[in-house]
Amino acid sequence: MTLDHTPASPASPAAPADCAFQDLSRLFSPASIAIVGASDRENSIGAHTLSNLVDHSDFKGELLLVNPRQTEIRGIPCHPSVEALPATPDVAVIVIPAPGVVEAVRQAGARGVPFAVILTSGFSEADEAGKAMEAELVAIGKATGIRIYGPNCPGLVNINARVGMTFSPAYRNDLRAGPIGLATQGGGLGRNMMQGMERGAGIAMWSSSGNECDLQVADFIHHMAGDPQVRVIATLIEGIKDGPRFAAAVAHAARMGKPVVGVKVGRSEYGARAAASHTASITGSAEVNSAVLRQFGVIEVDDLDEVIDTAALLARRLPTGEEKIAVFASSGGAASLCADNVGAAGLELAAFAPETDRAMRAVLPEYAAFGNPVDTTSVTISNPSAFSDSLLPVAQDPGVGLVLLPIPMDYHQFTAHTAGLIVEAQGRTDTPLCPIWMSDRLGEGYKVFAEAGITPFRSLRNMAKAVRRWVDYGRWRAGADLDWTPALLTRGHWTEAEATATLTEAEGKAELAAAGVPAAAAQVAASAGEAAKIAHGLGGRSAMKIVSARITHKSDIGGVKLNVPAHAAAGAFDEIMANAARAAPEATLDGVLIEPMAPAGGLEVFVGVSRDPVFGHVMTFGLGGVHVELFKDVARRMLPVTPAMAREMMAEIRSAPLLTGIRGQAPRDMAALEALIVAVSDYVVAHSGRVEELDINPVWVGEEGQGALALDAVIVVRA
Amino acid sequence: MTLDHTPASPASPAAPADCAFQDLSRLFSPASIAIVGASDRENSIGAHTLSNLVDHSDFKGELLLVNPRQTEIRGIPCHPSVEALPATPDVAVIVIPAPGVVEAVRQAGARGVPFAVILTSGFSEADEAGKAMEAELVAIGKATGIRIYGPNCPGLVNINARVGMTFSPAYRNDLRAGPIGLATQGGGLGRNMMQGMERGAGIAMWSSSGNECDLQVADFIHHMAGDPQVRVIATLIEGIKDGPRFAAAVAHAARMGKPVVGVKVGRSEYGARAAASHTASITGSAEVNSAVLRQFGVIEVDDLDEVIDTAALLARRLPTGEEKIAVFASSGGAASLCADNVGAAGLELAAFAPETDRAMRAVLPEYAAFGNPVDTTSVTISNPSAFSDSLLPVAQDPGVGLVLLPIPMDYHQFTAHTAGLIVEAQGRTDTPLCPIWMSDRLGEGYKVFAEAGITPFRSLRNMAKAVRRWVDYGRWRAGADLDWTPALLTRGHWTEAEATATLTEAEGKAELAAAGVPAAAAQVAASAGEAAKIAHGLGGRSAMKIVSARITHKSDIGGVKLNVPAHAAAGAFDEIMANAARAAPEATLDGVLIEPMAPAGGLEVFVGVSRDPVFGHVMTFGLGGVHVELFKDVARRMLPVTPAMAREMMAEIRSAPLLTGIRGQAPRDMAALEALIVAVSDYVVAHSGRVEELDINPVWVGEEGQGALALDAVIVVRA
Repeated sequence: MTLDHTPASPASPAAPADCAFQDLSRLFSPASIAIVGASDRENSIGAHTLSNLVDHSDFKGELLLVNPRQTEIRGIPCHPSVEALPATPDVAVIVIPAPGVVEAVRQAGARGVPFAVILTSGFSEADEAGKAMEAELVAIGKATGIRIYGPNCPGLVNINARVGMTFSPAYRNDLRAGPIGLATQGGGLGRNMMQGMERGAGIAMWSSSGNECDLQVADFIHHMAGDPQVRVIATLIEGIKDGPRFAAAVAHAARMGKPVVGVKVGRSEYGARAAASHTASITGSAEVNSAVLRQFGVIEVDDLDEVIDTAALLARRLPTGEEKIAVFASSGGAASLCADNVGAAGLELAAFAPETDRAMRAVLPEYAAFGNPVDTTSVTISNPSAFSDSLLPVAQDPGVGLVLLPIPMDYHQFTAHTAGLIVEAQGRTDTPLCPIWMSDRLGEGYKVFAEAGITPFRSLRNMAKAVRRWVDYGRWRAGADLDWTPALLTRGHWTEAEATATLTEAEGKAELAAAGVPAAAAQVAASAGEAAKIAHGLGGRSAMKIVSARITHKSDIGGVKLNVPAHAAAGAFDEIMANAARAAPEATLDGVLIEPMAPAGGLEVFVGVSRDPVFGHVMTFGLGGVHVELFKDVARRMLPVTPAMAREMMAEIRSAPLLTGIRGQAPRDMAALEALIVAVSDYVVAHSGRVEELDINPVWVGEEGQGALALDAVIVVRA
Repeated sequence: MTLDHTPASPASPAAPADCAFQDLSRLFSPASIAIVGASDRENSIGAHTLSNLVDHSDFKGELLLVNPRQTEIRGIPCHPSVEALPATPDVAVIVIPAPGVVEAVRQAGARGVPFAVILTSGFSEADEAGKAMEAELVAIGKATGIRIYGPNCPGLVNINARVGMTFSPAYRNDLRAGPIGLATQGGGLGRNMMQGMERGAGIAMWSSSGNECDLQVADFIHHMAGDPQVRVIATLIEGIKDGPRFAAAVAHAARMGKPVVGVKVGRSEYGARAAASHTASITGSAEVNSAVLRQFGVIEVDDLDEVIDTAALLARRLPTGEEKIAVFASSGGAASLCADNVGAAGLELAAFAPETDRAMRAVLPEYAAFGNPVDTTSVTISNPSAFSDSLLPVAQDPGVGLVLLPIPMDYHQFTAHTAGLIVEAQGRTDTPLCPIWMSDRLGEGYKVFAEAGITPFRSLRNMAKAVRRWVDYGRWRAGADLDWTPALLTRGHWTEAEATATLTEAEGKAELAAAGVPAAAAQVAASAGEAAKIAHGLGGRSAMKIVSARITHKSDIGGVKLNVPAHAAAGAFDEIMANAARAAPEATLDGVLIEPMAPAGGLEVFVGVSRDPVFGHVMTFGLGGVHVELFKDVARRMLPVTPAMAREMMAEIRSAPLLTGIRGQAPRDMAALEALIVAVSDYVVAHSGRVEELDINPVWVGEEGQGALALDAVIVVRA
């Protein structure tokens, strides 16, 4: 086994991450396991770990125990060391105290154990000595090829195979197998999601990888994407250790048709601060993070229960993005409020086919509501078959992609009976039937759903968010270019910022122009006479701006004059130079840039690129001025931006109608803007090792056929 | 007892609602009750109703039964009719079939029974015959003074007094007394909120008033506002029968210091459609509705469980609006994610006092996190007293207004023990301690909270929404003018629209100017010569616009010319008239309006007033152009708008920085804009019977001292 994985950190410029992933099948489904530190001492970690494998697992492989102080535990022989084991296990589960761990892993590595699962804590999360030991583990891994899971974690559980490599006494309570793969770093919040099993969510396997000195969440996402039993991957993003690796893993999941649902810790300053100290990960900008996740189809949700809602729905059926909704209720109020939530979420109610209407009318009373939402009325209490006989035609209506069944209250046996009818109906249709258990009283009916693996939503607004995300995922997939890869991610450009310098506007524009980005042809005058000459050469009116490496906010200091006629150019030169000298007496003034004024009536947009510490270069696009300042109306993409992605960015801002033509105004030259955006992206990709940041604000966009033009350019490069 | 209540409907222009409210104490706490239709037939409505009062209530008053076919039921004598009762009860609870109800109410009214609670259905919700019977009930009410609750409703329950005037077999399950008054129209969704008791929400009383032929939700809100046992009022707004009455009730609640929390059905087109057919109420515009509710401090939430979250928190402590938050957790992940939700909701974490820090450090291990969020670490498992001993100093910190306790998972007895410690600590501090039970597994600890009446939040984002609304309510109250009353609501202006006419711009501006609204001084020229004369008289450049009652989109047809110099006025006149004649050959052209151009560089805003069918005249204010079209960035107020309210409107739009001065631009003349807004409001109030709609777009706003000016005006009046 070769090991070419480098645990790349954002601080290692020379170590571009190799995004090759190793096959982890033997880690998740080992043929043999050694417990290093197995014990029979009550309530010890070693005893819990042993019991979980012996009493609460269906592990059929070979179980080897290491304990130098005992000859056997529960009839299984003990061996004094890993070295002394009679066979080489697939996985060594290590629960001995921290000081002995390094030696155990060394022995395991030496004899070719492919995986060590280290549950022990007291490593980098604890103190300097722990950090040093963890570094030794990494070194052993590199030297011997053993892959390390942990340390400082609750372990790894494969629920579908029922193999629990964990000390957690809670393991035995959360054993509902199913289609959701769960990959987290910390254990506590992961356990929360495991307890979603109480509501019917079945979890295939759970990795909770603690300090992640080697294997990390990205590796488990990659593995789960390839596991045929996993239909959806749920994750908790407490911080991304290695952006390129994470991106490669979620791109793989997308290609395999496995949606990834994640909740991000650190969306606000408070959370980011707390998470950074808790997980020692770099979080980057929350907005950039979200934009990149969206680009890869990762469904970012706001809370843990929403992970369960969304993952469980995606596991039931992969959406096409075209789904329309039916609401089917036995209460008028619930029908209305549910329809309201459907509408407020921007989802669409289906129009029923005539035969659906006929089928309902055949079994429901005249005063029922047959439109969508359907209100069967309480007739279903006295005549339960009317419920099923009207529900099924709705579910099978060709225009219906999902049926919502709001259940506002728990009426004991009656509700349980209805739940049974819904479960039964689900057996006869592929259309997801989605109950919404709105009450705080969780009676028998709730359990009926959970037992059937139909995870009921717990409120209408939770339903609306999850269903909206479900449809959106279908839309994303329908339009996604799954072959697109973030070229920059293998180039080591995500290093920490070093010393930087800012190009002058003239230099910046020259670079852009050379790269095919249309920029106003700028010339620099060193004297008033030269200014006059250039201005006369240009003909019409000019824009004039101070050129100085030290002055970036040029207009604030009187360093910009617009609409200058040629005869006034010399005077304007002197005035600009004087203003600049007054405002920045120590700055070197290189002269005044002169360029033709853009035609009046253009729309001003901006195109910027910044370097995120996690994901590298990301483009931001939007309209200038108040649109971005007051309304944060921007679109973002990781580079490279393809023409299709440029069009998406133009379409997704709320100000898009200003580009396409609002209130009878002429549409803008979107083809030219698209070409400009792509050229900027290509320029940054070609210079990714050098360009730190780029800001073209404004880009002038004319009417169709008039083109687009960079009117200003700030490019920050490594010094 | 006099009855001057008119069940005003939006269609009765001649019947302004009298917003006097009657004392309902004897309805909610009757000294004597008659059940008309009491029965001992198993599972009958009459038997359930009797059993609820006899077996499941603590009703100590006199219980009278009406049943002509029996002499006694369960030892209580039966009487053949209401007329024949030996005493006059406070409440007649009527459960006989619909055909007999009118006569029973007639007899009750005749003998002075103050209240009839009619549970029977088959009235206006059923058919024309039912509508006619319901009209008879209303007539009896008017004639005799008996007030009617229902018909077609599950009844009225006073949980605190434990008196259940209801047939519902579910009544006996939902008996947790408490501080929340619940007023709904429909029964199903109300029962959902009653089941919130499972989570610890205590409900004082529940009115569910069905068809509301007389008493309506507003009356019950008014009653609950005056009940000292009610601290918060929860309501479900399925439709507002009588806007003025509702407004008067919620204004009363605000003055009494009782927050009103409501969920509105019909926020989307789907929901509005379904609700309208379900409740036969007029819903009006959801945006206007929300704006008016906000103006009265009504807390509009999105879902039923959120009503419980928000009401239960408000019942624990009325906020000041200054509260800062502490997060106290025993898990790093939960602490981070909780802090994140606090930040994302725009709430503020408290900075702890030094003595709080010292107190925590005295009992928690060194590796705990002592900042805010606090992470005690799992030390609290082995040393529970460390939990209490660090929690209390945090709760008592002078900077902390509320403590959040996220509980990510259910660890059985351990979690139950922690829950007990929290309940115990709550007994020693006034600061609300708010557990967030994040897991789907509802173990003993959950029940510990519920039993103690501490309603745990069910997710972090639910918590964040509720806490944010709690703080916002405090802020609203701190700034609210509780004496403000909507003057228009007693003037019958909420009638259906009749035939209308649109004033010409010149007429409109003249009316506005006469009312003290600064408007450009407009003169109308009937000939090119007159145009030239007016233009020369004005001096500078003019704006010229066609005047015709038939042409509203003047600029679209070439009917507007701006910046016209005096010498060009005659030519412009001819051109405008020709354009208009071409575009609208049948329109009468009254000439061309000429007015001075507003100085360049003004900011353009708009001020509009429209008439909502439920709440009457409502003002909309915002910046013109894309701000309103793309970003819906507007503020709304029910009239009359006071100067303080005008300032609020200017401050609450997202574009506010454009008024106060963004990026070094000069601030606008906000005093002049405020005066203009108030003058517009006063004008509409003075002409509320005539003005249907008014649109001033744009209003030109100069820099400070330059004033504000209506540049256009469209006023729609009743023909």
